[in-house]
Amino acid sequence: MKKILTKVEANSVWNGWKQMQVYLEKGLIIFERSEGGYYYDQKGKKYIDATSNLLSSNLGHNHPRIIQQVAKQLNQIDSCTLIYSTSKISIEYTHKLLSQIQGSFRHLFFTNSGSEATDTGIKMAKQYYFNKGQPQKNKIISLKGAYHGSTMAATAASGNEYDKRALGEEFSTFKQVRAPNNSNKPLNMTDEAWVDECIREMEDKIKSEQPETIAALLVEPVQLSNGVVVFADRYFQKLRSICDKYNILFMVDEVATGFGRTGTLFAYEEWGVQPDIVLMAKSMTNGLIPMGGVLVTGEIYDNFCGELNSTKEFSHGYTSSGHPLACSSGLATLECIVQESILNQVKEHENQLFQSLKVLESSPLVESVQGKGYMLGVNFNPNLYTDDEFEWELGGVIEMLLKKKGLIPYYEGEGKTIIAPPLNSTINQLMEIVEKIEKACKLVEQSLKLKEKSRRG
Amino acid sequence: MKKILTKVEANSVWNGWKQMQVYLEKGLIIFERSEGGYYYDQKGKKYIDATSNLLSSNLGHNHPRIIQQVAKQLNQIDSCTLIYSTSKISIEYTHKLLSQIQGSFRHLFFTNSGSEATDTGIKMAKQYYFNKGQPQKNKIISLKGAYHGSTMAATAASGNEYDKRALGEEFSTFKQVRAPNNSNKPLNMTDEAWVDECIREMEDKIKSEQPETIAALLVEPVQLSNGVVVFADRYFQKLRSICDKYNILFMVDEVATGFGRTGTLFAYEEWGVQPDIVLMAKSMTNGLIPMGGVLVTGEIYDNFCGELNSTKEFSHGYTSSGHPLACSSGLATLECIVQESILNQVKEHENQLFQSLKVLESSPLVESVQGKGYMLGVNFNPNLYTDDEFEWELGGVIEMLLKKKGLIPYYEGEGKTIIAPPLNSTINQLMEIVEKIEKACKLVEQSLKLKEKSRRG
Repeated sequence: MKKILTKVEANSVWNGWKQMQVYLEKGLIIFERSEGGYYYDQKGKKYIDATSNLLSSNLGHNHPRIIQQVAKQLNQIDSCTLIYSTSKISIEYTHKLLSQIQGSFRHLFFTNSGSEATDTGIKMAKQYYFNKGQPQKNKIISLKGAYHGSTMAATAASGNEYDKRALGEEFSTFKQVRAPNNSNKPLNMTDEAWVDECIREMEDKIKSEQPETIAALLVEPVQLSNGVVVFADRYFQKLRSICDKYNILFMVDEVATGFGRTGTLFAYEEWGVQPDIVLMAKSMTNGLIPMGGVLVTGEIYDNFCGELNSTKEFSHGYTSSGHPLACSSGLATLECIVQESILNQVKEHENQLFQSLKVLESSPLVESVQGKGYMLGVNFNPNLYTDDEFEWELGGVIEMLLKKKGLIPYYEGEGKTIIAPPLNSTINQLMEIVEKIEKACKLVEQSLKLKEKSRRG
Repeated sequence: MKKILTKVEANSVWNGWKQMQVYLEKGLIIFERSEGGYYYDQKGKKYIDATSNLLSSNLGHNHPRIIQQVAKQLNQIDSCTLIYSTSKISIEYTHKLLSQIQGSFRHLFFTNSGSEATDTGIKMAKQYYFNKGQPQKNKIISLKGAYHGSTMAATAASGNEYDKRALGEEFSTFKQVRAPNNSNKPLNMTDEAWVDECIREMEDKIKSEQPETIAALLVEPVQLSNGVVVFADRYFQKLRSICDKYNILFMVDEVATGFGRTGTLFAYEEWGVQPDIVLMAKSMTNGLIPMGGVLVTGEIYDNFCGELNSTKEFSHGYTSSGHPLACSSGLATLECIVQESILNQVKEHENQLFQSLKVLESSPLVESVQGKGYMLGVNFNPNLYTDDEFEWELGGVIEMLLKKKGLIPYYEGEGKTIIAPPLNSTINQLMEIVEKIEKACKLVEQSLKLKEKSRRG
């Protein structure tokens, strides 16, 4: 008989982020199989993967072409470190990526994850100025509300003070500045004036910290973990100007937005400005093999080249950087994005998806629906507790209801739910996601009204 | 016609650690295929992989059983984040690992690499005491000469000051203490007295820093990147006693030593003491898919569990943690280690391998041969430059000669060469590695003598 694992057995794996009791008591689904836009649990129940495995399976699960290419590579070369060797497939992948990406990028530094990409980009920016004889130029400025990863340095660069609570006195060189998040916009201020005010704050911060101590500005095109916050293109254009003015590297974290999520291969392509460093991971391999990367211009790379035996090298790297299987998966992913016209599909349907979800704002439970491309935040009232018995807030209850209805969202906490379907979903699949969320909201609304009545009665 | 990539094309991939010119000018081999203990370049030339892909392919390349299991898993479930879900295979893998490892470990936190394992272990140790209401207990003590990885925090915990040169004023909570490395042993001191002196230094450091500010002691069983330095079991037993005495977590970095490298599944098993936290990566999946992990006792895990909605959770995790394909590869690797009696094979041949390499110490070029199990350091004279024209030191020249002879060593620099063959190598394969190194040494010795003669003449 087929073995069905229990939650007691699942408890050996420490999931992280929440206390394990929360996962175990509120329903930790054990997936066994995946295909296209769906997961299947141990009993064969089907679930829509409404976040593309947290934005890392942009082309859906078990994509036949990608799987086929990796299976082939498995028999060719199974591993090869870049620390002292190289592999043909990692070079071929890099060339393919450079040929697809807009902007004058010339070299790729491989990592195993988005966190490592952030960590690598930060170390690189610091050493860039160190190599130029400016070792004091080593501060990193990032934005409040940002999430850049989970290593200690990536946590320091992120905007969640709670996540930093146990780190101690580290990371004095990480600074953060307010971003033009519309939910924090002062009353009666126009969007344009709000961008200008945040830009002014950024410039003031740079001046007060002293520009000659700042190595890089690190930003996400869309703040995924902060309720999917979108900024005006103008904001990023102005950040680029500030970076130029004060000789600061402009580092863009495309870990979540990369590989088509917002309708372009990378989100920065819409700004009309060139970053110096781009961080990537997640859907780089369509989630098939863990991989991340740091893309740099020739100008940055050249700064790490000097006389042989000089000390300009970047003393950094990971055993599995540029892993052959990951690169094979990355190559197939890029080929599919191009040949299946994935970017066009997003552009064709993004408006309908957004407007359909936007209707939810008429529900008293929903504070806002916002986002870009296939990367949307449905933000519930974070202070509304639906059940006195469980003391559980609305977002958590909606998450549980959706799971019961066979849909997996990513619930961040504080009411913030991320919806990010595979980019090759059919319009029917997109609308099924919207319907399931609508139904969950209705159910909670009715239950709240009933409770209200029973209290009054 | 088959496309042969050039070094100009290879330059798009930034390898790291050395300046790219060094790789490109001194011979960067582009591998295309691997099998068992061998790599093959673009032209089909065969190379012995004498470091098991930097100790991550302990069972050799393209192991049929492991490849078969991953290929099967590819069609089952291709990705599934642990951030809000879980997969059957990641639970099954964890149970298999817990059943094989000695000691009272109860939970596994998954990462994507050894660097992330270090970063995670350090964050965990800090938050462990934070959760106990001791936020000031957040320093990490590690050993001089250690290498714990490449993220900023892992670099801070490592012993190479050069690698930290551009980091700035970060990481004030990382401290380092001398370890009983025999090459630094004071003259006329016995090995035993040297261990005692280093233990005394450790205890003095803990006292001077104040024990109530120290969260964890982080050590490698063997210092791989420091010339493969082995310490007495007694040293680790005493470290454990110190940790108990001062209420400090004992964290062991088994990233390189894990999965059979020293003849036991983990090197700490020989000490007769229980660590609190074990870091692992590299050969966890036989190098097939990037994966790392942090193994903890129930006591540590329980400290992250409180009332629901308490703040005890570990706010940490990676999108690809517990990746299904990696876990499938990990499961197959563990099964192979058991069923192919891999640990017995190491124990059977380790002495012959060591003694054969030890003969090299009779060469004037070799300072020492040391190590444990199938993890050996051949340490050349780091100050001997063999060629005035290239200003290249001996270790680098030997590395180049070995590559020409079809053998890939891992040359760390400063004369330190790591030899770590697959654990399932035949005795003939092991002896072929020894012979090739002997021949390379002879060639250099002769060339030096000739030069000496021509100078005299």
